[in-house]
Amino acid sequence: MKTGASQEEIDSVVQKARSQGLDVQLNVGTEKTVVALLGGNTGQLPTDIFAVLPGVESVTRIMKPYKLASREFRPMPSQVSCSGVEIGGECVVIMAGPCAVESEEQLMEAAKAVKESGASILRGGAFKPRTSPFSFQGLQKIGLELLAKAREQFGIPVVTEVVDPQDVELVCSYADMLQVGSRNMQNFALLTNVGKGRCPVVLKRGFACTITEWLTAADYLLAEGNDQVVLCERGIRTFEDSIRFSLDISAIPVLKRSSHLPVIVDPSHAAGHYSLVPAIAKAAVAAGADGLLIEVHPNPKEALVDGLQSLSPSNFASLMEELRTIAKSIGRYI
Amino acid sequence: MKTGASQEEIDSVVQKARSQGLDVQLNVGTEKTVVALLGGNTGQLPTDIFAVLPGVESVTRIMKPYKLASREFRPMPSQVSCSGVEIGGECVVIMAGPCAVESEEQLMEAAKAVKESGASILRGGAFKPRTSPFSFQGLQKIGLELLAKAREQFGIPVVTEVVDPQDVELVCSYADMLQVGSRNMQNFALLTNVGKGRCPVVLKRGFACTITEWLTAADYLLAEGNDQVVLCERGIRTFEDSIRFSLDISAIPVLKRSSHLPVIVDPSHAAGHYSLVPAIAKAAVAAGADGLLIEVHPNPKEALVDGLQSLSPSNFASLMEELRTIAKSIGRYI
Amino acid sequence: MKTGASQEEIDSVVQKARSQGLDVQLNVGTEKTVVALLGGNTGQLPTDIFAVLPGVESVTRIMKPYKLASREFRPMPSQVSCSGVEIGGECVVIMAGPCAVESEEQLMEAAKAVKESGASILRGGAFKPRTSPFSFQGLQKIGLELLAKAREQFGIPVVTEVVDPQDVELVCSYADMLQVGSRNMQNFALLTNVGKGRCPVVLKRGFACTITEWLTAADYLLAEGNDQVVLCERGIRTFEDSIRFSLDISAIPVLKRSSHLPVIVDPSHAAGHYSLVPAIAKAAVAAGADGLLIEVHPNPKEALVDGLQSLSPSNFASLMEELRTIAKSIGRYI
Amino acid sequence: MKTGASQEEIDSVVQKARSQGLDVQLNVGTEKTVVALLGGNTGQLPTDIFAVLPGVESVTRIMKPYKLASREFRPMPSQVSCSGVEIGGECVVIMAGPCAVESEEQLMEAAKAVKESGASILRGGAFKPRTSPFSFQGLQKIGLELLAKAREQFGIPVVTEVVDPQDVELVCSYADMLQVGSRNMQNFALLTNVGKGRCPVVLKRGFACTITEWLTAADYLLAEGNDQVVLCERGIRTFEDSIRFSLDISAIPVLKRSSHLPVIVDPSHAAGHYSLVPAIAKAAVAAGADGLLIEVHPNPKEALVDGLQSLSPSNFASLMEELRTIAKSIGRYI
Repeated sequence: MKTGASQEEIDSVVQKARSQGLDVQLNVGTEKTVVALLGGNTGQLPTDIFAVLPGVESVTRIMKPYKLASREFRPMPSQVSCSGVEIGGECVVIMAGPCAVESEEQLMEAAKAVKESGASILRGGAFKPRTSPFSFQGLQKIGLELLAKAREQFGIPVVTEVVDPQDVELVCSYADMLQVGSRNMQNFALLTNVGKGRCPVVLKRGFACTITEWLTAADYLLAEGNDQVVLCERGIRTFEDSIRFSLDISAIPVLKRSSHLPVIVDPSHAAGHYSLVPAIAKAAVAAGADGLLIEVHPNPKEALVDGLQSLSPSNFASLMEELRTIAKSIGRYI
Repeated sequence: MKTGASQEEIDSVVQKARSQGLDVQLNVGTEKTVVALLGGNTGQLPTDIFAVLPGVESVTRIMKPYKLASREFRPMPSQVSCSGVEIGGECVVIMAGPCAVESEEQLMEAAKAVKESGASILRGGAFKPRTSPFSFQGLQKIGLELLAKAREQFGIPVVTEVVDPQDVELVCSYADMLQVGSRNMQNFALLTNVGKGRCPVVLKRGFACTITEWLTAADYLLAEGNDQVVLCERGIRTFEDSIRFSLDISAIPVLKRSSHLPVIVDPSHAAGHYSLVPAIAKAAVAAGADGLLIEVHPNPKEALVDGLQSLSPSNFASLMEELRTIAKSIGRYI
Repeated sequence: MKTGASQEEIDSVVQKARSQGLDVQLNVGTEKTVVALLGGNTGQLPTDIFAVLPGVESVTRIMKPYKLASREFRPMPSQVSCSGVEIGGECVVIMAGPCAVESEEQLMEAAKAVKESGASILRGGAFKPRTSPFSFQGLQKIGLELLAKAREQFGIPVVTEVVDPQDVELVCSYADMLQVGSRNMQNFALLTNVGKGRCPVVLKRGFACTITEWLTAADYLLAEGNDQVVLCERGIRTFEDSIRFSLDISAIPVLKRSSHLPVIVDPSHAAGHYSLVPAIAKAAVAAGADGLLIEVHPNPKEALVDGLQSLSPSNFASLMEELRTIAKSIGRYI
Repeated sequence: MKTGASQEEIDSVVQKARSQGLDVQLNVGTEKTVVALLGGNTGQLPTDIFAVLPGVESVTRIMKPYKLASREFRPMPSQVSCSGVEIGGECVVIMAGPCAVESEEQLMEAAKAVKESGASILRGGAFKPRTSPFSFQGLQKIGLELLAKAREQFGIPVVTEVVDPQDVELVCSYADMLQVGSRNMQNFALLTNVGKGRCPVVLKRGFACTITEWLTAADYLLAEGNDQVVLCERGIRTFEDSIRFSLDISAIPVLKRSSHLPVIVDPSHAAGHYSLVPAIAKAAVAAGADGLLIEVHPNPKEALVDGLQSLSPSNFASLMEELRTIAKSIGRYI
C-alpha cells in the first residue's frame, strides 16, 4: 500500500483477496503496510485486479506465473526422447545441418558430413520465417520430403521448424522433432497446436523475452499435454552491435535451477558469423548445456540463407573434436 | 575488405557481384579497399553472399531492406480509410475501448462512453494473445458479434485483433479494421493472410523490433496488395523497470521521415498503469502522431484483462479535453 | 523462502533481521513462507545480508533505496533557483546554446540568438568528456571565461559541465549552474564534491541507468547538503538504431510521481540529428517537463562538436514559437 | 547522399572532404550516390562535419574510432605483466578475493584461501563506488595498507580499484595493478591519470557500453603511454531480470579478433548470485578468456558488500578443480 493508505483502502484490498479465495495477512511497517496474499494459485491470478484498487502502490509476485515447467512442479530433470536420441542425459546431443533445405544434393552432403562428425540429429529448414517478403521462403513440402529421405539414407532423426498452426500435422508426419522459432515463441495459436501433438519440440527463446516468459510459453505446450519439450537459447537482443544477438550464457544455469526441462544452445543464430560459433559452442557445453544446434552447410559461400553463420564440414569436424574434449572434462560425452 | 586483402580476394567479390547483375566500383583507401556494389535492388539481396567471401571484413547496406513502405517509394503521406474515418490527415483519430470484450453490458457501456467523449473508432479484443495458458483467452466469435452490435448501435467503426492466420476471413467479416499485435509483427503466415485481404490494418510494432524491421514487416502486407496499413508504436523493451514498456517517442518523427504510412500510438500498453497514460498520450499528439489507441473500461476495477492500464470513462473524457487543446496548438484537431 | 525451507532456516533469517533492529512477521502461504522485515530504514539496508542465508529464495524491496529525492520525503514539488530563473514552477525554462564553447565569436553569436528567441539560460561546454582521446576536448578555463563574458554581455545565467572532482570549485566560480553528464551520473567522487558546493546542478541520467538508480545518485548530492538539483532525461540506450539514444518520455510522469525534484529534457543528445529535435522537444513539454536543454550553434556546419544535432538560430526561433503554443495549451508558459 | 541529391550538394561534400585532406571517389548507383572518403585518419574524424551538409542521408564509418587497441595496429597478442604474473599467455590467470577489504582478519583469511587454491593475484576493494550514499564506502587508505600486508605475507600481487583521479598515485604506491570499474569506463579524467602512470590496469567494460566504445576507452590509456592494459568483461545491462547483468560471452571471441589486449572475465558481478558463478566461470575459460576475477569471502554471510555473489573458500576450491580440467582440455593451464 502507499504510504498513508487509509484503513478503508486496506480493507477493500483484503475483501477483494478474500473474494478470490485467498488468505490475507497484514504486515504493518513503520511507513507502509504490506498486504500478503496467500493461496495455492496466486501465480495464475492477474496482479491488476489488486493493483487497480485505491491506495495500492504496487503488487509483487512471490509465485512465478509458470507452473508445469518449474523445478518445483517436477524436482528431477526431464529427458526428452527424439526417435531414440535422449536429450537431457549425460550425452551432449549435437543437432546440425543447413539453415534451409535448398536441394537434394545440398541436404545429402550436409547430412553425410554432420553424421560422420558425430551429430545425432539433422536440422534443416523447410518453412523459413523470413523478415523480408522478397527473400527465399523455403522449399516447404518438398523440403520435408528431402528431410525424410536424408533420415532414411543416413539413419539420423530430423528436426525442422513449423511456422503456421495449420502445418503442424503435416510437419509432424515427416519430422522426428519440431522447432518453434524465436519469432513464434509467443505465437499462442501455434503453441496450442504443437502442444496438442505428441511430437517432441525445440522451443527457441524469443529474442527479447525473459526466462520467465519463456517458461510460461513452455507451459502452453505442457498444458496441452505435450511434455517432450526442449528449451533452446539462441541469443537475445541487446545494444551490442558486434554480434547479431548476445548469447545469454547465464540462461543455462538459471534454467537448470528454475526448470526441469533440457536446455540446448544455438550458437549460429546468436553469432551471425561463423568465426564466433566455436567459442560460443564451447562455452555452452562448459556451462552445462544438454545439446547444441549448429548450422553446417556443404558450401557456405553458395548458401541461399545465412551462409555467413554456417560452418563448413571441415570446420564443424574440428569443432566436434574440441567439444568432445570439453564434454569429457566436465564428466559428459558427445 | 580487410586490411591487407589480396587482389585475388577483391577480384572474387567483384565477380560475385557481377554474377548478380550488379555494377562495381573500387574505392582504394590508405589501409582498406571498399567495393561499392551498385544496382536497383541491392536492398533485397542478402548481404551474406558477399560477407562470406575470403578477405571481406563486413558488408554495409546503403539501401534499406524495405521498399514499398518507404518514403522514397511514395513521397507523399498515405491516408488510410476505416469505414469513413480518415487516418493520416489533419484529424488526430482516437480509437478507444476495452482491452477485451467481456460482456454485452461492458462493451455497450464502453462504446457509449468513448463515442460521447469524441473517439472515432471503437477498439475491443475478441481473440486475446495471453502470455499464460491459464489466463482468460477472450470471447472469440461471441466477442466479434458483440463488436458488430456495438457498431450498429453507436454508429462507430470497430478495430479488433486477429491472431491466427485461419481467422482472418472470419474477423474481417465482422470488423472494420484488423489489428496485428506486437507479438505477431513477425508472424509471417499471419501477415501474408492479412495482406491478401482488403481490410485496413493496424500493424503494432514488435516490442523488440527496430523501425527497419517494422517497415519490412509492413512490406509483407503491402507486397500482398493490402495498402491500408497504419503503424502503431506501443513501447519497446528496455532495461527500465518503472514502466511496462518504454514508449519510443522518437519513432514518430523517424517514421514520418522514412515512411509514407500513418502512425498512431498506444499509450496504454506501454504505460501498464493508467496514471501514466495521459502524459504519454499528450506527448504523442505533440510529436505528430496521427492517432491514439487508448484502453477505456467502464469499470477498470472489475476488468478481466489489463484493468490497471485502462482509463475510466471520466478520466478518458478529461484526457480528451486536454488532447483537443494540444491538437489545436499544433494546427490539427480531434 | 524457498518451497520446503526448514524451520531452522526461517529462524535464522528472523534472528538476522532482529540483530539489525528490524521487526519481523511471517506470512505462511500454501507453498512458500514469506518473511516480512519491518523498520524505518530498510531501504538503506543491503538485501544481500538476507539473500545469502540458507533457504532464502529471494529478497524483494518494498522501500526504495533512495530517500531524500523521494516524493514521500518531500510531498510538494521543489523549485530550483538559478540566478533568478526558477525551475520547477509554471514557466517551462529553456536552456540553449552550443555543445562546446569554441571561440568568443561563436559563443557570443549563440548567446545573442538564444536570448533573443526567449531562452532563459545559456548552455556551453568548456570541459568536454569525449569518447575518443583523439577528439577536441574543449577550451577548458578559457571556455569558462568566455561563458562569464557572455553572461555579462547578455544578462543570461550560464550552465556548464564539470567532469573532474578537482574542478568543481573552479567551475562554480564562473558558472551559475553545474551540469553532471550522463557518463558521470555514477561518478561518486564527482557527486560528492558537487554535493558539497551550493551551486545548483543539472544531473543528467546515465544512459543505461534506471530511474531508481538516478534518484539514488541524486541522493548523493542531497545527502551532502546541496538541494538545488534538477534532473535531466537525455535518452537511454536501447536496441533501436535509427536514433542515437531513445528518449524515455515516460520518465517525466514517473519522476513526477516518485520525486519532488524538477525534471528537464535534453532532446538534442537523444536525437543525434537536428531534424528529430523539434518533435521530441514538443513531446517533452506536452508530457510535463519543467524545461528543455537544447543545442543551438550559430553555424552547425562548422561546429567542432555535435554539429549534426545542433539547431541553427532560425530553426531554434521557429521551434520556440511552437513550444510557446504548446506550453500555453497545457496551462504553462515559456 | 539522399535519393535525388543535387550535383551542387554532392560537390559541397567533396569540397569539405578535400579541405580535410581526404581523397574522394564517387559511387553513382541507380538511386543514390555514395561519396567515398579515403585517407589515413578517417577513424578519428567526426562524422558530423559531413552528416550536417545538405543532401547527405547518412555517414557510415569503415574505419573504427579506436586505433592503438586494435589488432590492425598490433597484429600479435599483447601480454601484460603484473609483478611477475603474465596475463595473456598460455596460463589462465585467476584473480580472487573479497569484494571489499573489511578487516585484517577477513583479508588475511581470504588471501590464504585463494592462494592455497591456486589464485595468482589477490583482489580486494579499498575504495568502493557505491550506488547509494548510505552504503559502506570502503576502508580507503587503511584498506590499501592491509592489501600491501597481505601481499607481503602470502607473496601474491594485489589488484584494487581506483575511483578518483586524485588517488591514482596513492593507489599505485600500494597495489601491483589498478582496476578501473564499470561505472568509470568513460570517466576520462580518471583514464587520463591512470594512463599517465605505468601501473598495469584492468579496464572493466561499462555495463552499457559497446565493444567499440570499450576499445576506444582503452585507447585513452594507451595514448597516454600505459600499454599494460587488460580488458575485463563483467556483464551488460539487458532486459533479462533473472541475473544482475547478462554476461556477454561473445565479447571474448569478438575482442580476440578486434584487439591485441588480453581479456579476462568477472563472473561474480554479472551473476549477482554465487550459485551462478561456476557455470559462467567455466564458460569463460572454454571460450578463451585469459583470466578470471572472482569474489571469494571467508564468510559470505557476514560480508559487508556483495556477500550474495561471493564464493566461500571451499566452493572456490572446488571450482578451481573444475576450471583446471577445462583449461587443460583446451590446451591451457591454471
